[in-house]
Amino acid sequence: MDLTQALAAIVGPAHLLQGPDAAPWARDWTGGYRGQPLAVARPGSTAEVSQILRIAHDARLPVVPASGRTGLTGAAHAPGALVLSLDRMNRIRALKPGPRLAIAEAGVILERLHEAAAAHDLQFPLTFGAKGSAMVGGALSTNAGGSNVLRHGSARDQVLGLEVVLASGRVLDLMAELHKDNSGYALRHLFVGAEGTLGVITAAVLKLVPRPRAHATAMIAVPSVAAALDLLSRLQETTGGGVEAFEYMPRAFIAAHLTQTPGARPPFDSPHEHTILLEVGSTAPRDARPGPDGATPLMSLVEGALAEALVRGQVLDAVLAQNEAQRRAMWERRESAARITFTRPAWVDTDVALPLDRLEEFLATVRRRLAEIDPGADDMVVAHLGDGNVHYTAYPTRGDTDHLAAIRALVDATATALDGSFSAEHGVGLSKLASMRAHKDPVALDTMRALKAALDPHGILNPGKVLPAP
Amino acid sequence: MDLTQALAAIVGPAHLLQGPDAAPWARDWTGGYRGQPLAVARPGSTAEVSQILRIAHDARLPVVPASGRTGLTGAAHAPGALVLSLDRMNRIRALKPGPRLAIAEAGVILERLHEAAAAHDLQFPLTFGAKGSAMVGGALSTNAGGSNVLRHGSARDQVLGLEVVLASGRVLDLMAELHKDNSGYALRHLFVGAEGTLGVITAAVLKLVPRPRAHATAMIAVPSVAAALDLLSRLQETTGGGVEAFEYMPRAFIAAHLTQTPGARPPFDSPHEHTILLEVGSTAPRDARPGPDGATPLMSLVEGALAEALVRGQVLDAVLAQNEAQRRAMWERRESAARITFTRPAWVDTDVALPLDRLEEFLATVRRRLAEIDPGADDMVVAHLGDGNVHYTAYPTRGDTDHLAAIRALVDATATALDGSFSAEHGVGLSKLASMRAHKDPVALDTMRALKAALDPHGILNPGKVLPAP
Repeated sequence: MDLTQALAAIVGPAHLLQGPDAAPWARDWTGGYRGQPLAVARPGSTAEVSQILRIAHDARLPVVPASGRTGLTGAAHAPGALVLSLDRMNRIRALKPGPRLAIAEAGVILERLHEAAAAHDLQFPLTFGAKGSAMVGGALSTNAGGSNVLRHGSARDQVLGLEVVLASGRVLDLMAELHKDNSGYALRHLFVGAEGTLGVITAAVLKLVPRPRAHATAMIAVPSVAAALDLLSRLQETTGGGVEAFEYMPRAFIAAHLTQTPGARPPFDSPHEHTILLEVGSTAPRDARPGPDGATPLMSLVEGALAEALVRGQVLDAVLAQNEAQRRAMWERRESAARITFTRPAWVDTDVALPLDRLEEFLATVRRRLAEIDPGADDMVVAHLGDGNVHYTAYPTRGDTDHLAAIRALVDATATALDGSFSAEHGVGLSKLASMRAHKDPVALDTMRALKAALDPHGILNPGKVLPAP
Repeated sequence: MDLTQALAAIVGPAHLLQGPDAAPWARDWTGGYRGQPLAVARPGSTAEVSQILRIAHDARLPVVPASGRTGLTGAAHAPGALVLSLDRMNRIRALKPGPRLAIAEAGVILERLHEAAAAHDLQFPLTFGAKGSAMVGGALSTNAGGSNVLRHGSARDQVLGLEVVLASGRVLDLMAELHKDNSGYALRHLFVGAEGTLGVITAAVLKLVPRPRAHATAMIAVPSVAAALDLLSRLQETTGGGVEAFEYMPRAFIAAHLTQTPGARPPFDSPHEHTILLEVGSTAPRDARPGPDGATPLMSLVEGALAEALVRGQVLDAVLAQNEAQRRAMWERRESAARITFTRPAWVDTDVALPLDRLEEFLATVRRRLAEIDPGADDMVVAHLGDGNVHYTAYPTRGDTDHLAAIRALVDATATALDGSFSAEHGVGLSKLASMRAHKDPVALDTMRALKAALDPHGILNPGKVLPAP
């Protein structure tokens, strides 16, 4: 029996795809990575994943785990490899409102988890633009972030327990429903964010939080990034840490959104250089009872804080959403970032993190340097400002590979020189291997390689991703 | 040059202690572990730690990292080994109020960090009874918890960056000041909680949070543990997640505290079976402005919620601290737990975690089983209830080693059978090795051993701790 027959025997012939049937897996979402996989196996259970990996381990067959495939770094690129697609493992095994947790398989789409939690007046806080296709497995494997990290943390912070199939096919059961567990090394943290190179995440125990009863959502124009960060500190104090999103969009982003979105309206009467989408949430009934004018106490609280900031000159203009439709429109603008950013022909998208006190310096420096090597280049910024996470996209005047790589290197080097990171929430995949080699502490790289060798001695799991060759 | 001469040359002769000078390190805080170390080296810098480990690595010399030595599991027990004491590395390298972080060396005493943060109106939230002696290095190496985990998480959750010296002496620089960083594996999470078996933590970048402007602190009598957990859920909603502590003390604990503490007063007019210490904090000015009666809006909010719970029968009695002295007295009672628990002659102290919906079952079951094997035995409970973390202490009628071990095994097995953990916040050290062997998933144990072999191939770092022999 050859390898594909053996795999078909495990998952059933209908769930082993080859040739044209595998075509959707031959191209990534960005279009930047193309290549035909050997085959796509779509297991229906953890036991099947285990059997597949046993075979692959023995045969030294490269295996690329995949789920929603909305990643931006080529981490699911699988030319000639076996794609292990978790999309059929899409059960929410349990949802427990009392202890507030969900047990979800890797193939559960984030939005389905949002809906399931909402039915119990709970919330799974991890959310981002691709939530309608991204799946739990990929979100955890890349330690995804998004617009809610400020309040609730990254994907990592939502995980209580994890089920992982190791390279050998052994199943590592870490499915604890515990808020504290110091019984040995924190293994789950090793697999979250490892992009499938250390094991295959098949299920997780995820924390849920109470759903806010009230939101105060606003578009705010500020004079500078520094003013915005100071405003954030004050808003956190005023609301007792209730800021759920603090998203930065500059003038060019607002303008591009207007141009590209039929029916869209500008947030302010006149355009501003620096714009923030603010959302504050509260679960407290005292914040949610609307007054005679329809405004909730939370909205009044935020409005008051913004009015004070206006007097201080920290805010230039502000518009509070008066109803859910206005709130949705504000979010639609922010969540269309991928569409707005990636429709222009050649781009270099980046995902850097900076210490909060270096953000302005980063933006100024990277623009100056881009102009030096490509005076006609354009750029676009969108940022999870409270996390220090900037998505800086450059549109160079030419699209040859070397030039694009030089611009990426420039952005990543600028961030690193300011004590930042070249990967904040998108991971490394293939697109940031050069930056891993150039900027990561060599001791850290060697340590990661030692861990990889210990857990995947034959190097079958997502080979060539995350870790540059020594 | 022999080994001790070489070590003395690194740290200076005054900082290499042997014989009687090393006596304080020959006994742990609980008194349960005694044994003379080969020597105690007290390095003054990361470079010295590196040099010591290079020598130890070459000589295959066992090295036991130590700092405040307030641990409860024997993790710093070092008979015949070199104690690497971090206590001289006690600098706060930087405290940055803007981005709200502190860069502290491993030998910084927690209380000093609390004071340094308070001077900037900030807070380092990790706190527990031993805060006056426990140090950053030990707190991180054991992933310590305490009374504030509900709001701010365990030690792990306070860490942005880490400096670690590996077994080889190489220095791993992970000292990022970033809130997001997905550039490769989450190495810092591997060293936090590893009890010095994978590397020696020498410094950390730690998150600070705004200091609450208002507290509402109360002693609450409840009819049952289940009622307490439901009350907690409601209080979290009412206060928008503001509950900082929700500490459980039963009647026996309150009684023991009264007996052992001169001048102490009972929390209620008549004793109750189940008592909670509640603390809610808020940074919001709107919560802190006292009204004409001196009560802050936060106190009124909590008082109102408790009054409603009284009507529902969820609360039997409640006393709100009216001033800082009353608040301190409530905390003094809770923080004297170690003194109260450990003054009786023979005890088995445990530290288990349970899913929140199994807590009552655990307490009932463990008491029944203890009575079966030792009908005259007594017990004591104190719990971080919101985290599902119970410190169950048994006082058997005899103190022979086998009997004590059997009782520990009974408690740990009961917790594990209810999907709990035998170690919530104290770690494994030596005292929980038997439970690691008995209850930990064998795949998890093998995975941990593979990581240990990869990072410490000669097994010099805190040998014999955390991982039971295969």
